[in-house]
Amino acid sequence: MTVVDELIAALGPGIVATDAASLALTQADKSGHMSTSAPLAVVNATSIADISTTLRIASATGTPVVTRGAGTGLAGAAIASGGEIVLSTLAMNRVLEINPADQLAVIEPGILNGRFNEILAEQGFWFAPDPASKAISTVGGNIATNAGGLLCAKYGVTRDAVLGLTVVLASGEVLELGHRSVKGVTGLDLTALFVGSEGLLGVIAGATVRIRPLVRGTVATIAAFFPTVTDAAAASAGITASGIQPAVMEIMDAASLEAASTLLALPGVSTGEAHLVVQTDGPAAAEEAEQALAVIQSLGGRAELSTDPVEGERLLAVRRAMHPAMERLGTTLIEDVSVPRSALPAMFAEIVRIEQAYGIRIPTVAHAGDGNLHPNFIFEGTEVPELIWRAADELFGTALKLGGTLTGEHGIGILKKRWLGDELGETQLELQRRIKAVFDPSGILNPGKVF
Amino acid sequence: MTVVDELIAALGPGIVATDAASLALTQADKSGHMSTSAPLAVVNATSIADISTTLRIASATGTPVVTRGAGTGLAGAAIASGGEIVLSTLAMNRVLEINPADQLAVIEPGILNGRFNEILAEQGFWFAPDPASKAISTVGGNIATNAGGLLCAKYGVTRDAVLGLTVVLASGEVLELGHRSVKGVTGLDLTALFVGSEGLLGVIAGATVRIRPLVRGTVATIAAFFPTVTDAAAASAGITASGIQPAVMEIMDAASLEAASTLLALPGVSTGEAHLVVQTDGPAAAEEAEQALAVIQSLGGRAELSTDPVEGERLLAVRRAMHPAMERLGTTLIEDVSVPRSALPAMFAEIVRIEQAYGIRIPTVAHAGDGNLHPNFIFEGTEVPELIWRAADELFGTALKLGGTLTGEHGIGILKKRWLGDELGETQLELQRRIKAVFDPSGILNPGKVF
Repeated sequence: MTVVDELIAALGPGIVATDAASLALTQADKSGHMSTSAPLAVVNATSIADISTTLRIASATGTPVVTRGAGTGLAGAAIASGGEIVLSTLAMNRVLEINPADQLAVIEPGILNGRFNEILAEQGFWFAPDPASKAISTVGGNIATNAGGLLCAKYGVTRDAVLGLTVVLASGEVLELGHRSVKGVTGLDLTALFVGSEGLLGVIAGATVRIRPLVRGTVATIAAFFPTVTDAAAASAGITASGIQPAVMEIMDAASLEAASTLLALPGVSTGEAHLVVQTDGPAAAEEAEQALAVIQSLGGRAELSTDPVEGERLLAVRRAMHPAMERLGTTLIEDVSVPRSALPAMFAEIVRIEQAYGIRIPTVAHAGDGNLHPNFIFEGTEVPELIWRAADELFGTALKLGGTLTGEHGIGILKKRWLGDELGETQLELQRRIKAVFDPSGILNPGKVF
Repeated sequence: MTVVDELIAALGPGIVATDAASLALTQADKSGHMSTSAPLAVVNATSIADISTTLRIASATGTPVVTRGAGTGLAGAAIASGGEIVLSTLAMNRVLEINPADQLAVIEPGILNGRFNEILAEQGFWFAPDPASKAISTVGGNIATNAGGLLCAKYGVTRDAVLGLTVVLASGEVLELGHRSVKGVTGLDLTALFVGSEGLLGVIAGATVRIRPLVRGTVATIAAFFPTVTDAAAASAGITASGIQPAVMEIMDAASLEAASTLLALPGVSTGEAHLVVQTDGPAAAEEAEQALAVIQSLGGRAELSTDPVEGERLLAVRRAMHPAMERLGTTLIEDVSVPRSALPAMFAEIVRIEQAYGIRIPTVAHAGDGNLHPNFIFEGTEVPELIWRAADELFGTALKLGGTLTGEHGIGILKKRWLGDELGETQLELQRRIKAVFDPSGILNPGKVF
């Protein structure tokens, strides 16, 4: 009996897809990368028991398992290849509990972040992790990558919102990690270790997450334009230094701004300008926005401020148009370095240098509030050319030199494997491999990813 | 040559203490527990190189190492015994960098939390982790225990404030974990794994921590009295449910309140009443305090509200008198269970039941904002009687049944080892042991603690 036959026998044919279309869908993610061969089968798990059964069969037969949510990853961590079982948790999309008194929710991993937030909003709550993909990405995937987003400086990363996890080990055994209380220091923090583990340690089969009361009152939005991206970065640094904590603070360089303005057919944007958008919320929103505006104007920015929600959305429109605008320019490799906030001007300057040195275009946006940049390497064709990788290599090295990291929120997956050792060093890399082996001694979980 | 001779030869006699008084000091911590034999030596490390040298000698000779800061732990994790080397990082107390632009600081582990905050305050910043011991506990110790405190619901636990760590492995090798950026998801999150690891994985030799701009504006304090602790718990739940986020929200049961009031010779406190103290800060402090006051009064509380700093300190005085008040009642075993906030009334009711069942007194305070209770088991003599441990056993079991944890912020150390498996289960316990073995294959780091 083949592995696929075993899976069908144990789970039923409705759970196990083997048609070419279903298999092909799992060979890619939103990075644009695609594997060269189709996996054996896609298990569309509907319960923890399905996950457990799949892993037991995989363990018994030594078959690799790639866990997958909505496939919106940008690092190739959930891309499947020949000989592998894809374990999809997308159909496990229920919200099992919303507990206002304890400000927590218990969810299945396949719920989309945006949908989860819609359900929470009906009860006056929200879930803070807000990757740009939130409308299409799952909370399980957010947890597996420790997803970031626009709001992290003020509201934290995904790890900060996870109280407990139900995980299934490679053996098929189900384990409960963490607790429902705000605090807890019993033993090593395996909950935190699983957040961001990219499918290497086990399968996230459920989560107890922190939810927050909806932020009330005014939301103020400022859209500002500066002669150079360095000026915009100086303004964002000035805003941070003034002690204000914006919810959103985003920078677009001139190339990004021009592409987005063209897409939206916006009037009034001068070629060569850079863009800074700031949003404040909470009880001091209006006051903080006025302070931010003063900083912006004192540093030569031309700015509009609005506390009207509709107008605020209009001011954010340019930033939101970034991804479709990039798609018009060619194929993009979306990078994800993160640096200390004070190093943003230096990082932007290095990007310009790399553009010139390699004769390529790298329109860049940054979550300026937390120092996370997304340089978009533009090229023609479907495969990332070696020239682009060499330029990216320089970019990564620069981020590390500035005290930052290869990846702020997308993860390592397969696309950044070759740089992992540059950041971690050989000793730490070896420790990480051994920790994986503690959870997955046969190495069946997402092999070839990260390490 | 003995291990001690090797240490002295390598480090110099000024670094290695072997006098009886120095050794005896390391046999206890603030839990009141004491080991029965003195360690071999105390290494007062002054540099990362000293730590590294000590661990290399310890590894080569198979000698156990107990890392120790200020010795303020409450679980016995830093208590040393015969045959062990104590590695004290207390003398490594420098603040190496304060970076306002990046809102981070780089510190040595021995700096006291309170002293660190004094230094930060001069530059308009603070470090949010605020264990009650902050005046006397080190930041390294706070990190090693993932310390909590009064402000966690609003400002997070220690883990949320740690960006990166310098650690020394059992082998003596120095490792840099994490980064200086706000975000970073490169590989498994070993920084988070080290936070709260109680000396099992390596020695925390330095840290890059997040600092915050000082909270500006009004601080409002409410001191309220209720007929029963259940009423006080209902009021704290009501405040949370109203969407307010207090900085501090503390409950004292009748026995605690009576003891503290007696100590302070306070007038106007009726026997049998329970106490709730709430503090709000930030831009909405006054408004939030008015809302909290309305909740308190609607639930039968008698309350005073002040936005005057001096008066606010007076209102907090009862809560601050808790520990000295307990010391007057006898010897105390300070427990540390944590439950979901909605379970606070049930937990308080169980504590009363356990008091009656065992004929003992358990005055209890709670960080009501996050559900962390400190039941103080009172007894005579220096050793915790078996009867008290049996009562504590029931208390722990109850906290776990309510979805909580054995320890919210003190850690496992030696005092809670026997209950660890009750919370984690055998599979998770075994995974944790194996993770320790990855970092410390010979088991020389804090052996006999936690596991």
